[in-house]
Amino acid sequence: MPTLWSQRYAQRTQRMRSSAIRELLKLTEQPDMISFAGGLPAPEVFPIPDFATATARVLRDLGPQALQYGTTEGYRPLREMIARRAARDGLQVGLENVLITTGSQQALDLIGKVFVNPGDHLLVEAPTYLGALQAWNTYGAEYIPVPIDDDGMQTDALEDALRVGPKLIYALPTFQNPAGVTLSLPRRRRLVELAEEHGIPVVEDDPYGQLRFEGEDLPSLAALEGAGPNGHPTYHGNIIYLGTFSKILAPGLRLGWVIAPAEVIQKLVQAKQGSDLHTPTFTQVIAHTVADDQFLDRHVRFIRQVYRERRDVMLEALAEHFPTGVRWTHPRGGLFLWVTLPLGARAVDILPRAIERKVAFVPGDSFFPCGGGENTMRLNFSNAAPDMIREGIARLGRVLDETLQPTREATFGLAEALL
Amino acid sequence: MPTLWSQRYAQRTQRMRSSAIRELLKLTEQPDMISFAGGLPAPEVFPIPDFATATARVLRDLGPQALQYGTTEGYRPLREMIARRAARDGLQVGLENVLITTGSQQALDLIGKVFVNPGDHLLVEAPTYLGALQAWNTYGAEYIPVPIDDDGMQTDALEDALRVGPKLIYALPTFQNPAGVTLSLPRRRRLVELAEEHGIPVVEDDPYGQLRFEGEDLPSLAALEGAGPNGHPTYHGNIIYLGTFSKILAPGLRLGWVIAPAEVIQKLVQAKQGSDLHTPTFTQVIAHTVADDQFLDRHVRFIRQVYRERRDVMLEALAEHFPTGVRWTHPRGGLFLWVTLPLGARAVDILPRAIERKVAFVPGDSFFPCGGGENTMRLNFSNAAPDMIREGIARLGRVLDETLQPTREATFGLAEALL
Repeated sequence: MPTLWSQRYAQRTQRMRSSAIRELLKLTEQPDMISFAGGLPAPEVFPIPDFATATARVLRDLGPQALQYGTTEGYRPLREMIARRAARDGLQVGLENVLITTGSQQALDLIGKVFVNPGDHLLVEAPTYLGALQAWNTYGAEYIPVPIDDDGMQTDALEDALRVGPKLIYALPTFQNPAGVTLSLPRRRRLVELAEEHGIPVVEDDPYGQLRFEGEDLPSLAALEGAGPNGHPTYHGNIIYLGTFSKILAPGLRLGWVIAPAEVIQKLVQAKQGSDLHTPTFTQVIAHTVADDQFLDRHVRFIRQVYRERRDVMLEALAEHFPTGVRWTHPRGGLFLWVTLPLGARAVDILPRAIERKVAFVPGDSFFPCGGGENTMRLNFSNAAPDMIREGIARLGRVLDETLQPTREATFGLAEALL
Repeated sequence: MPTLWSQRYAQRTQRMRSSAIRELLKLTEQPDMISFAGGLPAPEVFPIPDFATATARVLRDLGPQALQYGTTEGYRPLREMIARRAARDGLQVGLENVLITTGSQQALDLIGKVFVNPGDHLLVEAPTYLGALQAWNTYGAEYIPVPIDDDGMQTDALEDALRVGPKLIYALPTFQNPAGVTLSLPRRRRLVELAEEHGIPVVEDDPYGQLRFEGEDLPSLAALEGAGPNGHPTYHGNIIYLGTFSKILAPGLRLGWVIAPAEVIQKLVQAKQGSDLHTPTFTQVIAHTVADDQFLDRHVRFIRQVYRERRDVMLEALAEHFPTGVRWTHPRGGLFLWVTLPLGARAVDILPRAIERKVAFVPGDSFFPCGGGENTMRLNFSNAAPDMIREGIARLGRVLDETLQPTREATFGLAEALL
């Protein structure tokens, strides 16, 4: 069942990177380009005055410490804050369960370093986060794709895939990148159950979980499992949970964290020592000072408001400007929305025309480790202002109108299955 | 000639890490401990008011940019500043030759990721920087040690070692960590020549080069080579040069840089993308704002003054308090001084007694990838205040007096060769 996907994937990303995406990323820097391509937060939500106050205070009260070397595990008060917030979200953890990383991306890299040997199979959602694949390709990973639908990873397909014996399961359960979908509660339970049954660790990547616009919060996989009958005083389960300040404070800090069993944290700490000694003390102390728990909660509410508006604007504009036969997800939070074109349409071919019209997106096939998704595209709604979203979707709608004309009549009954 | 050193080394460091050094690092946090063990800058030299001014300005003028995602290559004005400073030091480089890293440690890790395959032999000084070994062990490196003396790496021994066909040469030519010695100009020329002849890249790790207390500046290996007859408009040579702000501004920023041929930089950029996307924008923009060229030059002069005084105090105290038969280096810059005890003495056994007397150092054998150096120790003179240095060396002198008593008469004619 598993094949040498990584090779195929490596060729594909190589091609994408050196052509469409590379060029695209360059062109999106043009001032008149409306880009739905990146995954950037809105700079308007950065709490700049709060950073100014916090930094002045840090340099006055903690200057020598904030500018000096620190421990690999991270700045203790920041780890304590993360542990407190995890407890509030239903996950009891001790300090020994928390490691600060240089962004979530570093956590993915360290997991690769510690767990992945050449030829190991990793079970990933299809589509999934490109940066995880990029991190793990380095260590010779191969991939077993599990399809997703509107309720996230299809846990029925997961059961089959688990028989291959993957080294770990990589899941983005909440407001997934790239598709924006969320794993339902029953499927969360099933995923945790299956992983426990097979003794396979789950990497739960959760950059967007706090950015919910509607509906009720779902427990993280780690919280679900931690609440089970085999409870320990501190976290001792099967999940490696990844969090980040990138989407709730500022990505320019490059601050993330891992919550995992103490033995796993110890291994990651050893790997991290060789990788960068430790995450900058300066950003850790400042983030801790800015994000005293109450500020962060207030600030997250504000970000939710801004992004909900932008999502709504994008959904309205899509309904108005996109041709019939095109479908899209209705994300209840996060940063992304996923568009499925009629079967036969190729997003990669549409991109150059879109760029000509000064609007950009990422072709969805980039996010499939083992092929597929040629007729899909990822749209980011957090970065552009509402007016720009309206204008950008109108432009993209005109491009689709022209491009899809010949295939407009094609059937697309399978489109949903592909998602 | 090459053997499976890495295995032996891994066992040794494992032992050291889990016992002496780990415990030592914990104990050095006691408030009454005088530690010569770390490699920490003096917090008194951190330019805290300048950071406060710069940060306020950055958040006022460049807030959205400083808090947003950035490019993997690094913040352009910072890269330009580094290129200007390199040119001033005799190395013409373009922007395409400069990559910002999350500390020099990350540069070592990325070099491992890109260049080192399991079983590859790397040629290193013995003793050498422990963090480099830690970074490269992950990638399955094995080591060929080249002994050093007061003039740095012994280039005669290098010629032999090169016949093994190492993947790269790792050198700390200036005020080496751990021994504090500096590669002489003739040996620099010879090293560059030999590397070119054999087509083997040299990683030139230069964290301390600017911290010279006496004597004349020597050209970096990269500058020596760049000035050769095969000059290109931008750097196109055989050296991968690593610089850092840790010792001239503040290590808590975790900011380093690589200067290398554009093709090498491109590979490192790809590897870095998977490792942490990019180095924090926030610290890069602030470092650039603090370190406008003139401030950095003034500040480096100040650091030199402070550290020179501490080195002098340590040298005086050593002469006064250390028993005869013990030798030490006379570093002309940097942070470290290297002590050689009579043959037969074991620094690892002396450490627990020193810790009892509230003084700490690192046993020198930790820095030898393939064994040796049991009778050596590394002393850091940058972190403790002059009074503490006097008191600490006096304590250590008493410990050595007691410990070396029985072996005081032992010959130590080979001690210098070991260094």
